[in-house]
Amino acid sequence: MRAADIIIKKRGTGSEKGKELLKEEIEFLVNGYVDGSIPDYQMSAFLMAVYFSGMTFEETGILTGCMLNSGETINLRSFNGMEGPFVDKHSTGGVGDKISLPLAPVAAVLGLRIPMMSGRGLGHTGGTLDKLESIEGYNVNLDEKQFASIIARTGFAMMGQTDKIVPADKKMYALRDVTGTVESIPLITASILSKKVAEGSDALVFDVKCGKGAFMKSEDDAEKLASFLVKTAQSMGKKSCALLTRMDSPLGFKVGNYLEIEETLECLQGNGPADVMELTYELGARMAVLGGKALDTEDGIKKCMAAIKSGAALQKFLENVKDQGGDPEKLMAEQGKRRSKFKDEITAAQDGFLSVDAYKTGIACISLGVGRNKASDKVDADAGIIFHKRQGDFVKKGETIMEVYGKNSESLASGKAGLENALSFSSEKPENKKLILKEII
Amino acid sequence: MRAADIIIKKRGTGSEKGKELLKEEIEFLVNGYVDGSIPDYQMSAFLMAVYFSGMTFEETGILTGCMLNSGETINLRSFNGMEGPFVDKHSTGGVGDKISLPLAPVAAVLGLRIPMMSGRGLGHTGGTLDKLESIEGYNVNLDEKQFASIIARTGFAMMGQTDKIVPADKKMYALRDVTGTVESIPLITASILSKKVAEGSDALVFDVKCGKGAFMKSEDDAEKLASFLVKTAQSMGKKSCALLTRMDSPLGFKVGNYLEIEETLECLQGNGPADVMELTYELGARMAVLGGKALDTEDGIKKCMAAIKSGAALQKFLENVKDQGGDPEKLMAEQGKRRSKFKDEITAAQDGFLSVDAYKTGIACISLGVGRNKASDKVDADAGIIFHKRQGDFVKKGETIMEVYGKNSESLASGKAGLENALSFSSEKPENKKLILKEII
Repeated sequence: MRAADIIIKKRGTGSEKGKELLKEEIEFLVNGYVDGSIPDYQMSAFLMAVYFSGMTFEETGILTGCMLNSGETINLRSFNGMEGPFVDKHSTGGVGDKISLPLAPVAAVLGLRIPMMSGRGLGHTGGTLDKLESIEGYNVNLDEKQFASIIARTGFAMMGQTDKIVPADKKMYALRDVTGTVESIPLITASILSKKVAEGSDALVFDVKCGKGAFMKSEDDAEKLASFLVKTAQSMGKKSCALLTRMDSPLGFKVGNYLEIEETLECLQGNGPADVMELTYELGARMAVLGGKALDTEDGIKKCMAAIKSGAALQKFLENVKDQGGDPEKLMAEQGKRRSKFKDEITAAQDGFLSVDAYKTGIACISLGVGRNKASDKVDADAGIIFHKRQGDFVKKGETIMEVYGKNSESLASGKAGLENALSFSSEKPENKKLILKEII
Repeated sequence: MRAADIIIKKRGTGSEKGKELLKEEIEFLVNGYVDGSIPDYQMSAFLMAVYFSGMTFEETGILTGCMLNSGETINLRSFNGMEGPFVDKHSTGGVGDKISLPLAPVAAVLGLRIPMMSGRGLGHTGGTLDKLESIEGYNVNLDEKQFASIIARTGFAMMGQTDKIVPADKKMYALRDVTGTVESIPLITASILSKKVAEGSDALVFDVKCGKGAFMKSEDDAEKLASFLVKTAQSMGKKSCALLTRMDSPLGFKVGNYLEIEETLECLQGNGPADVMELTYELGARMAVLGGKALDTEDGIKKCMAAIKSGAALQKFLENVKDQGGDPEKLMAEQGKRRSKFKDEITAAQDGFLSVDAYKTGIACISLGVGRNKASDKVDADAGIIFHKRQGDFVKKGETIMEVYGKNSESLASGKAGLENALSFSSEKPENKKLILKEII
């Protein structure tokens, strides 16, 4: 077998399109790339051929399997006979998207076990790990045993990906980043799925975002990615479904690392914003159905609501905070009080219906100190935004639209300028678009 | 400027196709690749993006210019005030394609100066340099001064490409070969043209082959390549035209290194095969028109015929042989006598109209010792084929179809088996297809 022949097969010849690869061909390339026998320049040409020629669900499943097998996988069932159902949710990322935080304890109350391996913020989107680390003492650097034992006790645990999990993805992602081959749906699918399957889930619910603040700007692309994630997961023996959800303006009233923890507490206390609660219930219901803990979506939603209403989900969350090294009492005590001293406000420049651009908000949040331009940047726990007015609200000139918190006075000033640029005003009420666009099963 | 952004621009995003690159973007990539600041893995991803997104004539001209500027170019006019017109021909290669050998002296007789930088055989196609080196003493390793002085004296010279000419092409071609990015028309164009422009021609005639024994199997692809070569050359200020010619079965009666020199002498003595003569006249006439030595094609053909008939072209050829280190008298003396002692014959297995597959013939010739599988292989001067019957001829069972000559007895046996496989017999006369399909100006 020669790498160049496999590249040409995927590329196609003349007017003939690229062909579906055999399992052994994909394995030859990916395993060879991981062990160093296939050089970067052949892998990057192959990745570009995949960008243009695509892959079937089956090929994508094989690619995902190769990547998965490049490292360690977590077997939760081997831990003291722990039983599932192990169910997780993955979001493709947005601005103000803290859904994992209220969702995990709600799902745990329903009897699911959630092995949540999360990422850090990069570019305009935030990361669950950064938010959790704003809780003093909270430790996301767990080993497999700690991860499993916390899941066994509380029902869910939150950790970062270790170096031993899916090393092929790290190597391939770094190459894709510098060779213009990130935006390929089969490659995105394999990257997401290899990590999610490695963490030990039996079932996966995907929240695929589309719109201005999402990686997938168009509904068509987002739907294609959602289908790929669901069908490929299914081809690997995992139960799966996806929701296509809108990400044009930020989710919830609060954006920031600690501020999103605070909003999570509000959600778990029954005072969450409508959009955050809608996604929590809809995604939690799908997890419950896939995990056999609800008859149907409607039943799942009722059970999720009950988990909040009873206070059980809040209790779960605080137990997890304690399990992972934080102080639940301190966390509750600082609610509504913990704020950066570098504070400003943005007021309405004119009368009108407000629009908030999620992408521009996310980029401005990097300036504030919430996010990162590159992986080695440090984030600030207390920087962020509290919206008083949101997308579609009518505002009068001079009214406060948001409070803005910066890491320091310079970051506050540059972040504020960016946020002002994220706002627009119109005389007509913007269309009230549905948050959940479609379900893919 | 970032390489990844240029790759993405050429690749396109979502449903948006790749865009035309600016001069400075192409220069950034190619110059960076040559000086080592752009790594192989970015160049290979870029080349694959070009395979799919294509390039305009203008982009291809800029790419060619960058490649050209990576090394030395020959300025024939700086040599003792030598005057042009400097005109060359390039063929995309076929089996039995020795046209450069009779063509160069014919064109020189017409007053053109032909700076012919040629290649070696690789795969199923032969190379002009290998054929010339079958003449004892003939030296193709000329420096610029020797090259220019032979052109000044005899009107044409034949040399191999030196390491100093277009080093970017060598580096890029080696990368394309292992990354599945050879078969891109703009990349093929830039590779061919950069070398042809470097040798100092003012005008270029292309013989673009199509069919079983050509790199371009389909007429559409061949026509596209021909257009690219002509338009890109023109965009670089060179006069240019192309003929699209058929390469389904071998050209002429003789295939081999020395055997094609022998057939060249027959052509120059007025006894050449009809197909070789047709191409020599038609290509020579185009060179004459571009170089201002003929009014039109018809006039050019007449002048080419006269150059043969008068014996002037043969004289030119023998002068060149002498200038480049060979012995013209010895060459003439061995005509019809010099044969490998490892000889066999292939006879007709049945009655019928004969078809000869050029590609299979070319591959069998590698076994005989005529050609190379890889660049480091050595070729044999006397191996080859003399056809007694050709494509379309009616043969009776047992009649001799060809004499076969091998490097040794093993190569003879394996080559013969390959050649038998290149033949087929049918009860209906195959369609007599035109040799010249189209002219592209």
